[in-house]
Amino acid sequence: MRIYFTFEPRPDLRKPLVEEFPQCDFVFENGLSTDELQKADVLVTYGEDLNDANIQYATKLEWIFVASAGVEKMPAQAIMDRDILVSNVRGIHKTPMAESILAHILAIKRALPWMYEQQKKSEWSKKGKQTELRDNTALILGPGAIGSEVGRLLQAFGVTTIGCNRSGNAAPYMDEMVSFAKLTEALPKADIVLSVLPKTPDTTHLLKDEHFNAMKNDAIFMNFGRGNLVDEKVLIRAIEEGEIGYAVLDVFEEEPLSANNPLWSYPNVIVSPHVSSHSSRYVERSLAIFKPSLTKWLDGDTALENIMDLSRGY
Amino acid sequence: MRIYFTFEPRPDLRKPLVEEFPQCDFVFENGLSTDELQKADVLVTYGEDLNDANIQYATKLEWIFVASAGVEKMPAQAIMDRDILVSNVRGIHKTPMAESILAHILAIKRALPWMYEQQKKSEWSKKGKQTELRDNTALILGPGAIGSEVGRLLQAFGVTTIGCNRSGNAAPYMDEMVSFAKLTEALPKADIVLSVLPKTPDTTHLLKDEHFNAMKNDAIFMNFGRGNLVDEKVLIRAIEEGEIGYAVLDVFEEEPLSANNPLWSYPNVIVSPHVSSHSSRYVERSLAIFKPSLTKWLDGDTALENIMDLSRGY
Repeated sequence: MRIYFTFEPRPDLRKPLVEEFPQCDFVFENGLSTDELQKADVLVTYGEDLNDANIQYATKLEWIFVASAGVEKMPAQAIMDRDILVSNVRGIHKTPMAESILAHILAIKRALPWMYEQQKKSEWSKKGKQTELRDNTALILGPGAIGSEVGRLLQAFGVTTIGCNRSGNAAPYMDEMVSFAKLTEALPKADIVLSVLPKTPDTTHLLKDEHFNAMKNDAIFMNFGRGNLVDEKVLIRAIEEGEIGYAVLDVFEEEPLSANNPLWSYPNVIVSPHVSSHSSRYVERSLAIFKPSLTKWLDGDTALENIMDLSRGY
Repeated sequence: MRIYFTFEPRPDLRKPLVEEFPQCDFVFENGLSTDELQKADVLVTYGEDLNDANIQYATKLEWIFVASAGVEKMPAQAIMDRDILVSNVRGIHKTPMAESILAHILAIKRALPWMYEQQKKSEWSKKGKQTELRDNTALILGPGAIGSEVGRLLQAFGVTTIGCNRSGNAAPYMDEMVSFAKLTEALPKADIVLSVLPKTPDTTHLLKDEHFNAMKNDAIFMNFGRGNLVDEKVLIRAIEEGEIGYAVLDVFEEEPLSANNPLWSYPNVIVSPHVSSHSSRYVERSLAIFKPSLTKWLDGDTALENIMDLSRGY
């Protein structure tokens, strides 16, 4: 059994893996070579190095483990045609993303950007505008694994959570639920409006002028889902006309954000360069999902964790 | 009944107070005049305007409500000599301080200072060193009202909490307790070392070289109690010799911190100018404690909330 990694885990993570599975031949490379792909039974990848051209070389390949949650860049049809099983690390982003989202909210409430600037000037000043998170209301678009984890943490801070999804059906750690159709009515209550929605036809430009009009003028709007949620022109108008108090953006219609994009320079916009899920513990967490799946696989059991349905895109 | 405020609450907070107690004469001034002090039955103050000279004018005064937690600057003996009851707003700092402490921890873990600098350069980079708070261990010196609230929130983030006080007796939201005497043994476990200790003879220079030696080299050290906890020279040596990863300081041996103090300029030190308890909701919260006490007082009931024992200093 030949297992081909197209990235190189740190030695302290690689060594126990190799020792735990002496029956496997491991190959670790930084990048994908068609040579190695031809010999591999199992491929472990971040998913961005596979394409319609090189997948043709994967003649022995039976299982792809994607150490990532999105598969937008994978050659889905070619993989399905070859009947290759694909599993991923769904849920791995929950902890770092929820921590990033709480970090940004608390930093704004407790005036950390102001404080950092004062320090650069060696200026002892108590004039920062510090408010509190407690007793706020947060509206969470997409209360799935990540959104509910954010809801759980916000509730610990005494925040009321309103979840919003297509159906309006209950979701964990949401005090209230509304459907997409009732969104405009719920928005005036929210001090924080957070999206962690995936990219689907339903979510493209879901937020329009009327939604930003309905938000509190001091609301913090946060997009940590996908950039398709709102037309950038609509968002910029809302910022320029003071319809929201703050925007914290981890995702954009076009990434990377071009250097001349106005979003970089508003004092009440935070640009997070699509890093909210990044973590020094990412590979460690991925391997913790991979190992039990590999054990199953070696036993001939193909009911692995997080099997993906490429025809549906997740 | 004449009630003298030496600060001016916002009109939206002042109006309901005056309306709720039509039997009282309210005087609101920005600062203390001996003229008004002479006429007052009740004084509402931040506690910094009273001294041995002006307290002599308070001939009618029976109750001082201090909208602050510390009383270091009050003329304790003179107040006790005149048998004036003093109550304060103990616990009011719990929410904003715990939110500030979590804000700083999460901002460091999720690399927000780095991100803000990237944004100024309009630079899309994913190279920030982002780690996670989950599975960390925090050692909390002084697990009282504030320390326990921090413990509660840290536990929600999956952090193990070790409380440390003189006795080592149990405290809320602490997974483990150690006494001051066992501190050095506990420090190597901690990713975060936080003090919220008050200023007492016991706590002056409690932390010494040996304690910083015992900390992890990537530990975040946070002083949100009082500046007497550590000799500044000891702290600076620990920072310069890399014995800790980060220092977040809300309090200092001398405040304000002088403009030429080296603490301003280390890249891994955050100077918070003693503002962690500040909040736009401070006066609102103070009045929410004051009003039920005033109701009791008008009924002749002197068993008010948060009565202070000035002889003990709290």
